[in-house]
Amino acid sequence: MLKLYYAPGTCALASHIALEEAGAAYTTERLDFKANQQNSPEYLAINPKGRVPSLVTDRGILTETPAMLAFIAQSFPQAKLAPLDDAFAFAQAQAFNSYLCSTVHVAHAHKLRGARWATEESSFADMKRKVPQSVGACFALIERDMLRGPWVMGEQYTICDPYLYTIAGWLEGDGVDLAALPKVADQRKRMSERPAVRKALAEEQG
Amino acid sequence: MLKLYYAPGTCALASHIALEEAGAAYTTERLDFKANQQNSPEYLAINPKGRVPSLVTDRGILTETPAMLAFIAQSFPQAKLAPLDDAFAFAQAQAFNSYLCSTVHVAHAHKLRGARWATEESSFADMKRKVPQSVGACFALIERDMLRGPWVMGEQYTICDPYLYTIAGWLEGDGVDLAALPKVADQRKRMSERPAVRKALAEEQG
Repeated sequence: MLKLYYAPGTCALASHIALEEAGAAYTTERLDFKANQQNSPEYLAINPKGRVPSLVTDRGILTETPAMLAFIAQSFPQAKLAPLDDAFAFAQAQAFNSYLCSTVHVAHAHKLRGARWATEESSFADMKRKVPQSVGACFALIERDMLRGPWVMGEQYTICDPYLYTIAGWLEGDGVDLAALPKVADQRKRMSERPAVRKALAEEQG
Repeated sequence: MLKLYYAPGTCALASHIALEEAGAAYTTERLDFKANQQNSPEYLAINPKGRVPSLVTDRGILTETPAMLAFIAQSFPQAKLAPLDDAFAFAQAQAFNSYLCSTVHVAHAHKLRGARWATEESSFADMKRKVPQSVGACFALIERDMLRGPWVMGEQYTICDPYLYTIAGWLEGDGVDLAALPKVADQRKRMSERPAVRKALAEEQG
């Protein structure tokens, strides 16, 4: 039985949705970020990075969203969540997810997590001011060059879709205008109608 | 025939080494970052992100180091650069590479690329001052919890090794003391003795 550690409003939602889409047998455990539970000794024993998500499997613990998403796709091949028999197409999906984790999520994180990379309040404020521009530039690129439509990889729904949906859910809070991103907005709307997404959101928000 | 776009001193070295280890038939093309060639119209047509590496294949262009490394491992299975038949072990390797791209490389990038996330000179200076601490914390975690030894994943050399080697090559410049990182230092030394690494470095530095 798989067990997903998550906190509401985080990128753990992507793996949560993917587990639902895969029809996996899993449980979830919510961490209270306000109580800094991600840095408790108990959780650091599970994930010494003090971040979510973490996925407990019968083989051990996995972290890092792109790795977990590929693992879910490979573990439940009947769900067809990635082009597993085509190394090039699989790499394209992985490249998209890698861009989300290393560039888009990172740009977003400068709004509230500036202390990871600087010390002064003035720097935090400066970083925060730049978020609409830096996240906006990432999404302009996604809109123009990366999102094929209707799903990220085209006709086939993949592990890229819950991840994009999760990060695109932060756009309003990041001060990015969705009106300039019609394909992103359409993908987000399609996602919001999927039973797997509704179920994961209902649990996280419940 | 594969073609790798790279610039010396960048994370493209990881894919360059992996191509050598795989025995792939490939050519390379060097970009001149000082002349901002990564943002030339010609290169933006190849990679609209204006970054390296990019890998031109007969199916199209791939970007993002973790995706390219997995693609190289899957395309040249005889080189045994990843545990391709074990989804959990493959996910562990991918989780390591994902941590390098989304956290370790990002921490390092705050030394010289602060303009990605802020606007003021004072913020850039603040970010730069924090790099020894932020990159140092990442490598302390790698040393303590992630690098199994002698290679990242244990006895088997994988796509994690050229990537760690590449980023660990920046440690002195980032102000991190290697003396506190004996396993990282040992992996770096082992890597530097591999013919594939020597060949890739000779070409990039030539």
